[in-house]
Amino acid sequence: MLETIRHNTQECISLQRSLQDTLYVINGKWKILILATLMDKPYRFKELSRELGISPRMLSKELTELEMNDLVTRKVIETKPAGVEYAATDYGKTLSPVLQALSEWGKKHRERITGH
Amino acid sequence: MLETIRHNTQECISLQRSLQDTLYVINGKWKILILATLMDKPYRFKELSRELGISPRMLSKELTELEMNDLVTRKVIETKPAGVEYAATDYGKTLSPVLQALSEWGKKHRERITGH
Repeated sequence: MLETIRHNTQECISLQRSLQDTLYVINGKWKILILATLMDKPYRFKELSRELGISPRMLSKELTELEMNDLVTRKVIETKPAGVEYAATDYGKTLSPVLQALSEWGKKHRERITGH
Repeated sequence: MLETIRHNTQECISLQRSLQDTLYVINGKWKILILATLMDKPYRFKELSRELGISPRMLSKELTELEMNDLVTRKVIETKPAGVEYAATDYGKTLSPVLQALSEWGKKHRERITGH
């Protein structure tokens, strides 16, 4: 009995920890949207800012955090004027099932609350 | 060409919207943990507070928001003293694939950063 309780508690702590780990990495509303946008193709900083309607300052902060976690890469493009391009890393792309699950539920939820 | 761009932009907006819808419903770090805990079995308010290490005040706020979105139910138990029990609704349980995806990624992420 005590073993079962201990086991369940440990499982619960482990579940909590793994959920929190993910939430910590993708915290805030922007990181998930940035990653979802970069999944398909790389974007220039300015394009991304326009596409998502994020201020350059906020976008820059979010991209730096994503870069620190190895989820996106930053590449300077030698055009004139020089540009900066961001892309999802292979590791960033492993978040794809998470984004898909979030997006699918969101679609169903919207259908449910709007009735179509 | 213009059609393709328009199509892609609309798809992107729709993806963003569905991601944001989900994030809006499960915002903050506690709601996901509360739901994950209630997936298996109902909990008394006090048990849940102890289990997750959330202050009663914060837990109460989070549960009210989850209840408003029809993700959990609140039931008064006629014991002496009376207790309050929370459970995931059927609708709340539809978030299970989302929680699973978040948890699985978190496990792999921890293995990656800790090396075991």
